[in-house]
Amino acid sequence: MANYCFGIDVGGTTVKCGLFTVTGELVDKWEIKTRTENNGENILPDIAKSVLDKLQEKGIEKEDVAGVGIGLPGPVKGDGTITGAVNLHWGFHDIPTELGELTGLAVKAGNDANVAALGEMWRGGGVGYKNLIMVTLGTGVGGGIIVDSKVVAGSHGAGGEIGHVHVEDSITTPCGCGNYGCLEQVASATGIANLAKAELAVNDTPTIMKGDYISAKTVFDAYKKGDEVAAIIVDRFANYLGAALANFAAIVDPDVFVIGGGVSKAGPVLLECVEKAYRKNAISFCKDTKIVLAELGNDAGIYGSARMVIE
Amino acid sequence: MANYCFGIDVGGTTVKCGLFTVTGELVDKWEIKTRTENNGENILPDIAKSVLDKLQEKGIEKEDVAGVGIGLPGPVKGDGTITGAVNLHWGFHDIPTELGELTGLAVKAGNDANVAALGEMWRGGGVGYKNLIMVTLGTGVGGGIIVDSKVVAGSHGAGGEIGHVHVEDSITTPCGCGNYGCLEQVASATGIANLAKAELAVNDTPTIMKGDYISAKTVFDAYKKGDEVAAIIVDRFANYLGAALANFAAIVDPDVFVIGGGVSKAGPVLLECVEKAYRKNAISFCKDTKIVLAELGNDAGIYGSARMVIE
Repeated sequence: MANYCFGIDVGGTTVKCGLFTVTGELVDKWEIKTRTENNGENILPDIAKSVLDKLQEKGIEKEDVAGVGIGLPGPVKGDGTITGAVNLHWGFHDIPTELGELTGLAVKAGNDANVAALGEMWRGGGVGYKNLIMVTLGTGVGGGIIVDSKVVAGSHGAGGEIGHVHVEDSITTPCGCGNYGCLEQVASATGIANLAKAELAVNDTPTIMKGDYISAKTVFDAYKKGDEVAAIIVDRFANYLGAALANFAAIVDPDVFVIGGGVSKAGPVLLECVEKAYRKNAISFCKDTKIVLAELGNDAGIYGSARMVIE
Repeated sequence: MANYCFGIDVGGTTVKCGLFTVTGELVDKWEIKTRTENNGENILPDIAKSVLDKLQEKGIEKEDVAGVGIGLPGPVKGDGTITGAVNLHWGFHDIPTELGELTGLAVKAGNDANVAALGEMWRGGGVGYKNLIMVTLGTGVGGGIIVDSKVVAGSHGAGGEIGHVHVEDSITTPCGCGNYGCLEQVASATGIANLAKAELAVNDTPTIMKGDYISAKTVFDAYKKGDEVAAIIVDRFANYLGAALANFAAIVDPDVFVIGGGVSKAGPVLLECVEKAYRKNAISFCKDTKIVLAELGNDAGIYGSARMVIE
């Protein structure tokens, strides 16, 4: 049996790379630039070169590598094909075939958010579970659904696109996806900032939140200090997210929800208020489902990508 | 390889039984009574006897049977245990162990609605697909999620409990589950009747819908005849269901939605209006997801149960 595997996480500006043992130990971690010029034609060759160079550097034979897993910012189907990726200037690519030919190694590909969920299951907040939903609260809201230790890629690679679940009828500004009232519009960092802006416009209660731009961090920092207006905003955010998680539980009923992304840096207070809203809304069977914080931060992608190539 | 398998669908009054070839041909179909007295202690022995009698009758050896699949009205976990089933007067049962000992055959168990989804995938409206969501519009709203040809049972056996996804904030009467505004309250036969009642109370437009009790069938029949008020009600129902399906697509992104249950007897007009609402709400990747009618009717459960024992 092979002892090593690679986990690659492709972003719009850098490609994060990890060399792992198949038991999940990170042996080495590095980054290369994402060269998006000429329709991103260099991205896969650059990755292949970097992988092969690393093997040479470490004196590892290809026979000792289980494969290369790669997470991509776009809709990756179960067979590892991607129809396009705006941030990479890509159209269609068949990743397992193309990167497989370039490296001579087995390749699996997945959507970056889905793959991060797999990473958290393997070595992060979801260790010990096989059924997991990861919610990434960043600039947007991303997600990944793991059923029986496998990513749910979906028919169009849209599995886990939970940021675009509809949660609010009254929103009249469009989401990036073109719809109105998506979870992303009320639970991302941007969404929380918007909730804050709306509340501050109508609420005259004194608050320690100041400045022209109130960020999600400003809101949570004020909340931790007992700010009354921040509490209203956090409560609103938590109710949206908690109710959405309750809906997800009635659909795939995971063992655990893992909350990651920049907003999750607010820490245990975030969990506490989301849990409260979740337990209020969840169907009776599922009220005890665990909600935990992600643990791998920006490394979730390389861990999860590596995990894909291990059966 | 074994040539036969059994599919058993346990309801509160009768147990439907099917003997199948492993390729999905129904060889024989029969029913026995569900004896719920004494905490339903006879139910599994009765099923075992019926299965063994059928083998004798047909001259089939146990070695030629892949196993017995059984669908149950309650939360069945992935390991085939059930914490309880109100309609069967049951507490906890470990079905594979108990029915396995009684029959000497391999046994798998699943929730009845989940199993029906698997049946439709095998020999019904979802043939040719591996990722499917079935929506059963009956007295309530049931559901089943199939990912990669397998039922998503969920951590608490609540996978596919889509009737209890929250869809409407303004509802003030509780759902059977204790929550408010569940899909079941607006998209089941009962839910459609309630939508009708509410609309007729405030709308004076002439309508052909008459009588003290307006059923879902009354509404769809009137809709087919061009009734203006019925069109409002059908539109409301379709918007709830279509928007819910759009949310499901952003979570598990199935190849196909299969609509079954009594309400689906309204036929193509139902599909048409639900599809319209779905396409309006779905994220861009998923707008072309197929929505079809179920084909197996009350036999979906025995087909799906049988399918569980075939890998």
